[in-house]
Amino acid sequence: VDYHNHLSVAEIAANKRFDDIYDLWIKPDPYKHRAMRMAGVAERYITGDAAAIEKFEKWWEMLPSLSLHPLSHWAEMEFSVLFPFRVAFDGKNAKSIYNRCNAYLQNHEITVQTLLDVFGVEYACPCASLTDDVAFFVESERLAPSLRGDDVVALSQAWIEHLEKVEGETISTLSNLERAIENRLTAFQKAGCRYADHALDNGFVFYQDDGKNEERFQKAKQGSLSKEEGKRLASYMLLTLGTLYAKYGMTMQLHVGAQRYTSDRLRLLAGAAGGFAGIGNSVDVQSLTAFLNELEKREYGLPKTVLFTLNPSDNALISVLSGSYAKDGVAGLITQGPAWWWCDHSLGIVDTLEYTAVYGMLSNFVGMTTDSRSFLSFVRHDYFRRILCDWLAQKWANGEFLGSENDLFALAYQLSYGNAKKEK
Amino acid sequence: VDYHNHLSVAEIAANKRFDDIYDLWIKPDPYKHRAMRMAGVAERYITGDAAAIEKFEKWWEMLPSLSLHPLSHWAEMEFSVLFPFRVAFDGKNAKSIYNRCNAYLQNHEITVQTLLDVFGVEYACPCASLTDDVAFFVESERLAPSLRGDDVVALSQAWIEHLEKVEGETISTLSNLERAIENRLTAFQKAGCRYADHALDNGFVFYQDDGKNEERFQKAKQGSLSKEEGKRLASYMLLTLGTLYAKYGMTMQLHVGAQRYTSDRLRLLAGAAGGFAGIGNSVDVQSLTAFLNELEKREYGLPKTVLFTLNPSDNALISVLSGSYAKDGVAGLITQGPAWWWCDHSLGIVDTLEYTAVYGMLSNFVGMTTDSRSFLSFVRHDYFRRILCDWLAQKWANGEFLGSENDLFALAYQLSYGNAKKEK
Amino acid sequence: VDYHNHLSVAEIAANKRFDDIYDLWIKPDPYKHRAMRMAGVAERYITGDAAAIEKFEKWWEMLPSLSLHPLSHWAEMEFSVLFPFRVAFDGKNAKSIYNRCNAYLQNHEITVQTLLDVFGVEYACPCASLTDDVAFFVESERLAPSLRGDDVVALSQAWIEHLEKVEGETISTLSNLERAIENRLTAFQKAGCRYADHALDNGFVFYQDDGKNEERFQKAKQGSLSKEEGKRLASYMLLTLGTLYAKYGMTMQLHVGAQRYTSDRLRLLAGAAGGFAGIGNSVDVQSLTAFLNELEKREYGLPKTVLFTLNPSDNALISVLSGSYAKDGVAGLITQGPAWWWCDHSLGIVDTLEYTAVYGMLSNFVGMTTDSRSFLSFVRHDYFRRILCDWLAQKWANGEFLGSENDLFALAYQLSYGNAKKEK
Repeated sequence: VDYHNHLSVAEIAANKRFDDIYDLWIKPDPYKHRAMRMAGVAERYITGDAAAIEKFEKWWEMLPSLSLHPLSHWAEMEFSVLFPFRVAFDGKNAKSIYNRCNAYLQNHEITVQTLLDVFGVEYACPCASLTDDVAFFVESERLAPSLRGDDVVALSQAWIEHLEKVEGETISTLSNLERAIENRLTAFQKAGCRYADHALDNGFVFYQDDGKNEERFQKAKQGSLSKEEGKRLASYMLLTLGTLYAKYGMTMQLHVGAQRYTSDRLRLLAGAAGGFAGIGNSVDVQSLTAFLNELEKREYGLPKTVLFTLNPSDNALISVLSGSYAKDGVAGLITQGPAWWWCDHSLGIVDTLEYTAVYGMLSNFVGMTTDSRSFLSFVRHDYFRRILCDWLAQKWANGEFLGSENDLFALAYQLSYGNAKKEK
Repeated sequence: VDYHNHLSVAEIAANKRFDDIYDLWIKPDPYKHRAMRMAGVAERYITGDAAAIEKFEKWWEMLPSLSLHPLSHWAEMEFSVLFPFRVAFDGKNAKSIYNRCNAYLQNHEITVQTLLDVFGVEYACPCASLTDDVAFFVESERLAPSLRGDDVVALSQAWIEHLEKVEGETISTLSNLERAIENRLTAFQKAGCRYADHALDNGFVFYQDDGKNEERFQKAKQGSLSKEEGKRLASYMLLTLGTLYAKYGMTMQLHVGAQRYTSDRLRLLAGAAGGFAGIGNSVDVQSLTAFLNELEKREYGLPKTVLFTLNPSDNALISVLSGSYAKDGVAGLITQGPAWWWCDHSLGIVDTLEYTAVYGMLSNFVGMTTDSRSFLSFVRHDYFRRILCDWLAQKWANGEFLGSENDLFALAYQLSYGNAKKEK
Repeated sequence: VDYHNHLSVAEIAANKRFDDIYDLWIKPDPYKHRAMRMAGVAERYITGDAAAIEKFEKWWEMLPSLSLHPLSHWAEMEFSVLFPFRVAFDGKNAKSIYNRCNAYLQNHEITVQTLLDVFGVEYACPCASLTDDVAFFVESERLAPSLRGDDVVALSQAWIEHLEKVEGETISTLSNLERAIENRLTAFQKAGCRYADHALDNGFVFYQDDGKNEERFQKAKQGSLSKEEGKRLASYMLLTLGTLYAKYGMTMQLHVGAQRYTSDRLRLLAGAAGGFAGIGNSVDVQSLTAFLNELEKREYGLPKTVLFTLNPSDNALISVLSGSYAKDGVAGLITQGPAWWWCDHSLGIVDTLEYTAVYGMLSNFVGMTTDSRSFLSFVRHDYFRRILCDWLAQKWANGEFLGSENDLFALAYQLSYGNAKKEK
């Protein structure tokens, strides 16, 4: 159960067939691009105009220098699921391995559906924007959209116009906007959407409503909203959306603390999600708690909320919020999410488990999700489970676990699969 | 030796008898309330009007879902000290366990004194406000007040008037106030007080004296002090008190980094200390060091200072200050305190030991204190000792300990008991 | 290979002979001074007028209370390299040990060269200021200067005048200054300089060039630059220097996050580097990334950059920047440096390895450097290697290492020595 990822809906809808290992394994994965840059591989072989085989070769050759990096573990695991033959990950024979992999792919008709089957994907939620057509998902048992709400919060003239077109009506006021958003949300509901997601990037500040947001909306509509005003309107929109999530029983994911602006040069070459993002400073707790507090006071209270932090030194600060808000009858109203993005490795996974166990409540943990752009990254669920079970076994061996061996197994099940399945 | 806690002085003075396990175990413990909220237990069963047996039942039933949380360990340890019978902590049979516990309590006359004996409490320091009557403590060998100084720092009209009443004199100027405070401090001294305590909550800023604090005091007296002005006056009062602590050989505890404002709803329902506090951002080091520096320059220099941080990512930053100030002949002038509040679990305890050992000086560590509102929480000293000894044994086994086995045992003794006893 | 330290160039040039263990072991080492203060040793025995033997005695007697502190490990290792006899580190017999050590030193003509030989130093880089005479280094195979650039960045009237004298020409404009700096840099190049170093202390903010820096330079030259203006000019100078480092193929070390102002009293007694510095708050990521981004856009792009953080809770934030900038053909353009200063102990060393492995790329790690003022501290390279090998062996035993045993050995070699040697 992978409740939040960035897989291409178009490729899923088309059930894209993969016949080149580069297209499947390297091209869609900014983690690998980033690693190649760290190794000094020229950009031409990463996002540039080199041939697929050349790019594969560069990646293959630098892979051994990634020892102890999660990419080295994932590489082995991805290959062992995907191919029936074993290869040595020693950086040698790149071309022959490239050809062997491609021969296999071409002979076995590997498609998106094959991959979902091979990795045992029961349920997955690719991101979609509120204005996206989600009709494709309505019939799918296995797939549901996860709402990526950032463009709703960072309102722009272009986005409002796009929403007007999608909805076929004029949006002249904030309340028009809110009705249009709710309409779209109900379409998402019909498509099975259970999760929404917002990025609270480095520098996030929450502003209380000062009564001027109608005015700001009008400026946004005219394309004359300043950056500073935009931040205030964003707080208003977050509250509006959060309230709708609570109303519709959706879970709100907050991805906190990315520093997306680092190298302008790489942003230009590789696009906004090109693998060069940094980790932000500690989130402003006063802002985060004020936002949740304000939401709690609204008509529907807080939606279920999963907090992801990109800065692992915020693990305690984030986990402890599990006990700072509550709703009668709702276990795990606020929980820390699994280790996210650059934190998705054994160090990060163990940390989120440790911190959730002592600052939050481990049995409420929602379990792993990939948040990935690559169809192969489902293997990370297996990676997560191995680390989880190893960690639980150590706790058991230390005598720290209150309960029976069966309780331990039940907990491993819940955290690997059961809790996420319940929410789907 | 428990040099700082929040036990009820009234209950101690009355030697309260406990005949209901709910009253003893659950009612006074916000840690448990918080855990119940995380599990989705309705507030009615936490701080609401449900019957004691119902509240016990809800807590008992959710306890197994707290596996690996310190509350699960404490629960087992508290029961094993308190009751001669064993129970399974499997969430079942709540009512019969409730009745069995109550029968035991009723048949064995369990009072505050019994509990202090059972847990082997040699010396404990419940908090008292400066205006509290501490006559009760004068005759006690076992108990001394720990001064909770926050209302002195956050001066209000009501508090000044209260102090006037207690002292039986008019307080018209800052210097009147300072004399009245010193009078009360000497009363605390007679009652055995050795420790004072201040909360430097999230957002703490230290302001240098700008010569306007007499003016601010007059506003405080008239009830017209703004929040911003209050913060400046607070810095002045902290310096005043810190100087008095140094003069009287008291130890100043600084509890740094709570984010006490999270859910207004829970604050209303459960009170200010109702278990919903969060963890603040990293303390402003420039403020903290400037405050200590300013105090060091005063007539009596720095008092012994124990720094507690609620944000574990500040462990290094806090521990290292042990080496940033000094006083001839005083070992451990500044030390990091034991893992505090939400950090009081094996992860937090090991962290404070690790960080103190390498950024500070472990042999100066002041040892465990509960900071708790529950008479059963003395068991956490045992919890601390087990974790400490396990950690020391690992260091010994790794060959990291310089010294003999006897030195190791001596260190374990000092950190468990000896250092705190010396200070009492 | 010790690519950055604070050894005395004068003592190296004079090949100073050591005949007093106090002079060699304690006097030049602020780490020990700090530890003595934590133990309550009076300042007279630290930086005061007590006799060498008395100071040795105080240090020797408090050493056992440093168990588990790295100083206790270093002490044992330093003695075992230096002296052929074994002593018990039990705090006893200080005077006889002092005399025995001195007798040995006096009988064996222990000089700087002896020490470099004994510790197996192949290459070491003591700091030098840009205005220092580095002629001494030109002929040395073993020694090269490491440029300490802080006084270039914090431009003062006195420093500009000093540079004018050194260069024998008038510096009237920023471009004059930049030419003079480049002249000096080429002299450093001739002396073998490969590394420069800047302290970005707690509170570091990067300011974009606003076109007013010529004006600010003129004020600096007249001694009328305000502190605030100085910070803006500092950003300009950092960019200027960073560009020159890139041009000349030098590596830029950024030492981030010291809080050098703590106790004014100790600063007065012990000097600016007297061992009382604290750890700053998390570095402002927006400033750090903006500085690197701006530098990347300049003519020569980014120089190789090594980021050291004094605040270990910034390890992830710092390590991850390895993937945020890149240069075709340069492996490890940006890397996290080894555990620095107060972080130089097993906890800190393991953390930098762990974080580099999963947020950065371990094989690019530049290896250990002492950054020390003591000729004995080369032993910390051995300390580092032991911790590194222990850590790698655990990873191997856990099956986390992708590659053969020979690959593992090769990695241990690279991180202990090979990578640093390549850069020399």
